[in-house]
Amino acid sequence: MTRAPTALQVVGCAFLLSIFINFARGPAFGKPADERTPDREAIRSVLAAQDAAWNRGDVGAFLVGYWHSPELTFSGSSGVSRGWDGVLARYKKNYPDRAAMGELDFSDLEFRFLGPDAALVLGKWHLKREKGDIGGVFTLVFQRFPEGWKIIHDHTSAVAPASGE
Amino acid sequence: MTRAPTALQVVGCAFLLSIFINFARGPAFGKPADERTPDREAIRSVLAAQDAAWNRGDVGAFLVGYWHSPELTFSGSSGVSRGWDGVLARYKKNYPDRAAMGELDFSDLEFRFLGPDAALVLGKWHLKREKGDIGGVFTLVFQRFPEGWKIIHDHTSAVAPASGE
Repeated sequence: MTRAPTALQVVGCAFLLSIFINFARGPAFGKPADERTPDREAIRSVLAAQDAAWNRGDVGAFLVGYWHSPELTFSGSSGVSRGWDGVLARYKKNYPDRAAMGELDFSDLEFRFLGPDAALVLGKWHLKREKGDIGGVFTLVFQRFPEGWKIIHDHTSAVAPASGE
Repeated sequence: MTRAPTALQVVGCAFLLSIFINFARGPAFGKPADERTPDREAIRSVLAAQDAAWNRGDVGAFLVGYWHSPELTFSGSSGVSRGWDGVLARYKKNYPDRAAMGELDFSDLEFRFLGPDAALVLGKWHLKREKGDIGGVFTLVFQRFPEGWKIIHDHTSAVAPASGE
């Protein structure tokens, strides 16, 4: 036998729904950044680990910050490199030895969360090298995976130093 | 008087919850692209309107595709330009006249949706000009606003044409 639910049951169901909708939505686009502090710190950790790996000459460990997928993309002045293997090959070609790699520093990180599981991160990169420093700007799109935040797309540009820098 | 809900009411409530959770989440990250066809077409329309505006020399109309906000960012070989006015100024400086603007063509668009209201769009740009063609790759991050999809971040690089192109 079925009975119509009581008003209290309807209200209770609506209340549960509202809680679950908020839960399902996760932290919304446009919410103040401080509500995303744990995510921001997690992404900072990925970049700090990349920086440390680079500075000990370990390109393989540097690549751990990237999504290990054929769909990973890296855009720059040589076009688009595709897949984790393609991005690794690009790094190995452009930075064949410790002298070319130099000492990496990321700075001026800016975070914009695009949803519960995606973030846009802008920043600057600088390589201190005996044969001449280089640096520029990057755009990273991070996605949250079960194993943590990973870069799914990287667009990196060199920027000529302004006079006085 | 309150009564314990019947099993049927509990199941019905859970069913409603599951529908509303899916609705609240929107089309999820990683769902097949064809479920996002209307969004993809809306973004294509923004880019087609930009292309048409550029090719009639109307930089102001070209800029309509960008988020009209001080938080808009544009990264490239001169670093980061900030705000709608800053991006407009960059375009006007780099492309002062019709000859510099040339004829724009976007191609090879790739879409990745990052949530219900955000998308990563990669593509190629080409300017056909009497003084020499230029082109390269871009990374656009789009956000859905009440007035439609807008570019909130643009990272554009020139790419030297490969031999044979």
